[in-house]
This record gives sequence, C-alpha cells and structure tokens, in this order.
Amino acid sequence: MPVFEKAEYSERVRKTKEAMQKKGIDLLVVSQPANMNYLTGYDGWSFYVHQCLLVSLQQEEPMWLGRGMDANGARITTYLSEDNIREYADHYVHSTERHPMNFVADVIKEKGWDKGTVGVEMDQFYFTHRSYVELEKDLPNAKFVDGNVLVNWVRAVKSDAEIELMKRAGLIAVKVMDTAIENINVGVRECDAAAEIARTQYKGTDQFAGDYPAIVPLMMAGEATKTPHLTWSEKVYEKDEAVLLELSGAYRHYHAPIARTIFLGSNPPQLMKDTAEVVMDGLQKTLDFIKPGITAEDVEAKWREAISHSTIVKESRLGYSIGVNYPPDWGEQTISLRPGDKTVLRKNMALHLIPGIWYDDVGFEIDATIYLTENGNESFYDYPMKMFTK
Amino acid sequence: MPVFEKAEYSERVRKTKEAMQKKGIDLLVVSQPANMNYLTGYDGWSFYVHQCLLVSLQQEEPMWLGRGMDANGARITTYLSEDNIREYADHYVHSTERHPMNFVADVIKEKGWDKGTVGVEMDQFYFTHRSYVELEKDLPNAKFVDGNVLVNWVRAVKSDAEIELMKRAGLIAVKVMDTAIENINVGVRECDAAAEIARTQYKGTDQFAGDYPAIVPLMMAGEATKTPHLTWSEKVYEKDEAVLLELSGAYRHYHAPIARTIFLGSNPPQLMKDTAEVVMDGLQKTLDFIKPGITAEDVEAKWREAISHSTIVKESRLGYSIGVNYPPDWGEQTISLRPGDKTVLRKNMALHLIPGIWYDDVGFEIDATIYLTENGNESFYDYPMKMFTK
Repeated sequence: MPVFEKAEYSERVRKTKEAMQKKGIDLLVVSQPANMNYLTGYDGWSFYVHQCLLVSLQQEEPMWLGRGMDANGARITTYLSEDNIREYADHYVHSTERHPMNFVADVIKEKGWDKGTVGVEMDQFYFTHRSYVELEKDLPNAKFVDGNVLVNWVRAVKSDAEIELMKRAGLIAVKVMDTAIENINVGVRECDAAAEIARTQYKGTDQFAGDYPAIVPLMMAGEATKTPHLTWSEKVYEKDEAVLLELSGAYRHYHAPIARTIFLGSNPPQLMKDTAEVVMDGLQKTLDFIKPGITAEDVEAKWREAISHSTIVKESRLGYSIGVNYPPDWGEQTISLRPGDKTVLRKNMALHLIPGIWYDDVGFEIDATIYLTENGNESFYDYPMKMFTK
Repeated sequence: MPVFEKAEYSERVRKTKEAMQKKGIDLLVVSQPANMNYLTGYDGWSFYVHQCLLVSLQQEEPMWLGRGMDANGARITTYLSEDNIREYADHYVHSTERHPMNFVADVIKEKGWDKGTVGVEMDQFYFTHRSYVELEKDLPNAKFVDGNVLVNWVRAVKSDAEIELMKRAGLIAVKVMDTAIENINVGVRECDAAAEIARTQYKGTDQFAGDYPAIVPLMMAGEATKTPHLTWSEKVYEKDEAVLLELSGAYRHYHAPIARTIFLGSNPPQLMKDTAEVVMDGLQKTLDFIKPGITAEDVEAKWREAISHSTIVKESRLGYSIGVNYPPDWGEQTISLRPGDKTVLRKNMALHLIPGIWYDDVGFEIDATIYLTENGNESFYDYPMKMFTK
C-alpha cells in the first residue's frame, strides 16, 4: 500500500499540473523513479527497464506504463485505477527491433494526447536519448519541450507528512553512524564495517523499517580520503588512518544523510585538526543563519564568509535539496547552495549541507540534514558535531 | 588499484576499437558505468553526475572525463596517465546554464577528434537526451551514430580472470542465500531479514570482500509474490506465506545472482508444488542442453519444450547475459534467452537463467547462474535446486 493518503498524491498531481500549465505543457512524460513514486506511490526496483508515468491535463489520474511483470507491482503500491496501469509485452525489453517508448506512444495516441505540447525529462537518467528519438518519431503531431526537473521542483517543498518520514530516516541515520563508529577499528576489513552499516540501514529502528538509501555507504580510508565517492574493499583499517563516512538513514525512500570523519588514532595531523575546526565552525555559523526568506546563494555566501579567515577553499557546492529518492542519487537536482542559485528558501524545504574537503594530503567530511521551520531550521537528527578519534 | 592486470584492460580496449572500426566509429563516448569500469577499472559511486570515457582510434588509452572531486578516484582506481584524466568544474553540476557535455565537447575539439564519426550509447541510462543535444550542438563537424551496447557485446565473452571473479561472487551467493533461508521465519520483520542478507552480501567470505550488487535484495512475500521487483517493509512474515528471493553475491562488481523460493509452512498449495516441479525439471533439462555452438533462442526453445506438458506459460525471457555491473541492472543488455535471439553461445559467456513465475494466485522463482565451458556449462555455485519449506 502507498505510504501516504490518497489525497496527498492528488495534491502533488494538482501542483504538477499547475507547473505544467505555466510552462504550456499538456502532457508530461515522467521517467525519473522518485518522481513516479512521488506522484503515485509506485515503488519497485523496475527502473532498470523503461517505464514512465503520463500526466495529462485532460485526465485526473496519472497513468503508469511499464513492463508486464511489474504491473502487479503498480497495482499493489499505488491507488491508480485499472485503466491507468498499462503494461508492455516482454519482447520490448532490450530489443533491437522495438522500444518501450513505441508502446508509450501508442497509448498516447489511443488517448488522443498526441496533438499538444509534450514535456519530457530531457536530462534525467532513465530517459535516454533513444527514448526521445522513438517518441518524436511516433508522435509527429506533438511538440516536444523540456520538462526536466519540473516534478523535482514540486518536490522541493515537503508536506508535513513527508517531514515526518524524514524524521524517521533521521532516527535511522543516528543508528547507522553509531554502527559505523563502533565497527570501524584498526585491523577490521572495510567490507566487514560496510556490512554492519548496511545491516543497520536496512533494519532501521524497532518501530520503523529501514530502506535502501539511494547511495551505498561511501567510506574512504587512507589514500582514498582525497576523493569522495569510493566504497570498500578487503583492505584492513590501519593505525593513524582517517576514514570519511558519507552514509544515510532512509525510510520509505526518504533520506536523512549523515557524514562524519573518524581518525583511527589519538593524534590526528595538525592540518586535519585545523581543517576540522574551521569546517565545523563554518557549518555551525551557516546553520545558525538559515531561515525562510534567504536565498540558496545567501547560504553559501555565509559559509564562505565564515571560513574566510582560513586557507580552506571549497570549490564544489555546499549542499542541495533532499527528500525521496532512488539510486543513483539522493539529491533532488533542484536547489544547489552555491553562487548564482537565487532560490528563496521556504518552510518545509529540506537541505543536505555537506562541506566535504578532499585535498591530496587531508580529507574531512561532516554534514547537516535539516528542514526549514517557520523562523529557522531544524536538524532531522541529533548527532555530535565533531571529529571522532579512537 | 584496478582488479585486473594492465594488459587485460589493454586487450579490452583493443577489442572495443576493433568493434568500433567495424561500425565505422572513430570516437566512442562511453557513459555506462560498467563499460567505464570494464575498459579502465574506474570504480566509484560518481555516476549520479555526468561522466564518460572517450575511446579514440587515434589514441591508445581511453580518456576519463568527470567531475573534479572524482578525478582522484580515477587516479586511484585506474592505470590511466595524468593527461587522460580530465575534470570539469563543479558549476557544471545540475546547472541550467551549462552542461558537463559542453566540457566533454571542448576536450574532443582540443584533441582534434571532432571531425569523424562519433558513437554514443543512445539507449543507456546515464546518457540522457540532453547529453546528446549538447554534444551535437557543440560538435557540428561530427557525425553521430549509435554505439549502444557496443562495449556490452565485448563484455559478453569473459576472460578467465573474469570467470574467476564470478566464482568468488558465487561463493558469496551461497552464503547470501543461506542467510536468507536462516533468517526468514514467521514473525520476523521483512526488513530484519533484508538486513541480514545485505550484511552477508557486503561482508563476503573470509577471503573475499563482498560488494554491493547492482540490484538490492528483491524479496516478495504473500500478496507480493505475484510480481517480481518489490523490496521489503515493516511487515512481519506470516504462516503459510510464500517468499520469493532474488538475490546475488557480488565481488568487485561481478555478479552471481541466486534466486530461490521459501514456503513458510509444511504444506505449500498444490498449484505451487506443481509449478515448482515443472519449473525445476524444465530448468534442469535446459541446463543439461546448454553448450557452445547453440543459439540463445535454442536455449529458450528447449525450456519451452521441457515444460510443454504443463499449463505453465512463461511470457518473459528466460534469461540474459551477466557479469560486471552497477545499479540499476546486473544484466548486460546483450544476449536474451528468447525467440529471435540468434546469438551463438561461446565458451566463457555467462548467463543468468531465471524462469520466474508470477501468477495472480501463485509465484515461484528459482535460477541458475552459469558459464559456458569447452563442451557444456558450469554453475558459479552449488546450491540445492528445490523449494524450501520451513
């Protein structure tokens, strides 16, 4: 069963249609798995084949289109009526003769939705170039426009029900980081620590089942601390090695990322201590500043100002919008905390601030996952803001 | 460090260039993460932003292009020389003003590779429609052709070193299924069973670290057994409920999937027992038949013949090619065991046969993950071919 009330999905679809109307879009083809989940509740690891929703201004409900074997998954996980669950035959899968978008186009024509302006998510993974080519070929009367991140932007402001799920993810995040800190020790294989972390991620709390986060545990040790996105190996943790941890708790695909740094020894290098000090102080000052009404770039400017007395340069963005998601990314691809992003922050937006530093000689990661309240912001979890030594 | 010798990557690049020449491709833009790993060893969870390899007939080594913060990851995980690791600035990420493919196009022009025929992976996730639009706009002198699954086909025949890694994945697969069968019991939450399964997947064996499979544990219980791709929840397993398990062991991103069915009671419904019997017998007869020289569609025909005395109809393909992969799919998108696929099977091809049945009233899954030997085939693991009752 879907995790939210039917009315919540209806409201999301209504907002999506409002955004479509503003852009002159009559029909939106939604391929991004998180967007499909957001609008209908659809949930399944079926996004390795082509699938989509059709959101038409001419019809109240979205329509799900996917592979035959997944149609029962749509029946189980959404409120959609039977006529709005359409399945394609298996010979469309990885075929050189036909493409699932040929089937999608047939349905669009059957419904008479092929004469208007069709929005597609042009820069979302899961909507390939070939998807576009096939739709364009099959729908000669349609005008195609970019509907990229249209639904993502609707997702940017969470409902109270969504914030509640993210708090549950936050409860799980605390357990996940506790597990990591407990299990990462000199002489332990990285994979054995990763195993305990994943176990806690999936297990969750006694009350709330954990879910698979959109990104697996990122845990860089030793030489690997000069880069952010490596995973784990047979390698054993060594004395006086730093370990950067970028993890998450997830509940029903809603995320609360958590990042901390461990030093496996009592005396971290001075440069690492200094870096940690500056970053944590800068992050705290930035958090104290965040409230509705300021812009995304204001947040980054505050951060830059707060660390300006140091030699630290953070070239990558400071953070981004976060919420429901599927692999490969837990970010929402909308708000970026960096110069030029003039998005005005509003109540119930959720942000992941991750001032990661990956220099050739030292790495340090710490983060905060927050949502905006009426007058300020709150964290989804309560976790010590410090570098862990052991 | 990369998992294979440098010579193995060189040989893969050589074969890729051979395939490029046959198709008249001068430059191949490789975006699929498994293809990038296969050609260079590159390994990192960085595929949530745009990245690619350039394979040019004019240059021996491929070139890696990705986000600045991931360049050190390329330095750590590949043998590529410094000139062949190119990083784009962070303001290319999720920007409305510029796209990472603008950077890629600039490098292509710098190298003088913009005047020939450029192959792109038109139907691979991770190469979006916008990626294509930007490349086409920036490279007016290039002729674009489809290089989809070109590298995937090179991957279809494994080296002995790859088969060895898949055997290690097979060792892990056995532990993974043992863990599932031990932990799935009446009264246990699905998420708690999933947690133990993931733990074993990441842990691996004492000798070999487990890796994250390209698909999370799929574990359908009760009503959900009528569909294949659901995951887990807070729900507690109930007496006389069937549980379909589609899991995998993975080692350095090489997969050995394993699927079995558990019935939580001593007396499964007659229809389920009958279905299991037919499917297992049909699968065994099919396995006995597989050897080099026959075609993919011959395999499926054998299966269909073997179950023809029953009422079972399997509309979806019987299986597919398997090997190295990243989310969202462990299949290679090349060989499909189904009518019309005339691929001749060869030694060291690896296949996942998964005759899953998902009826409205009964579901049953069992599988085999094998590779072709000189005269027949061998499984990557030894696991009882039966329905488990408990």
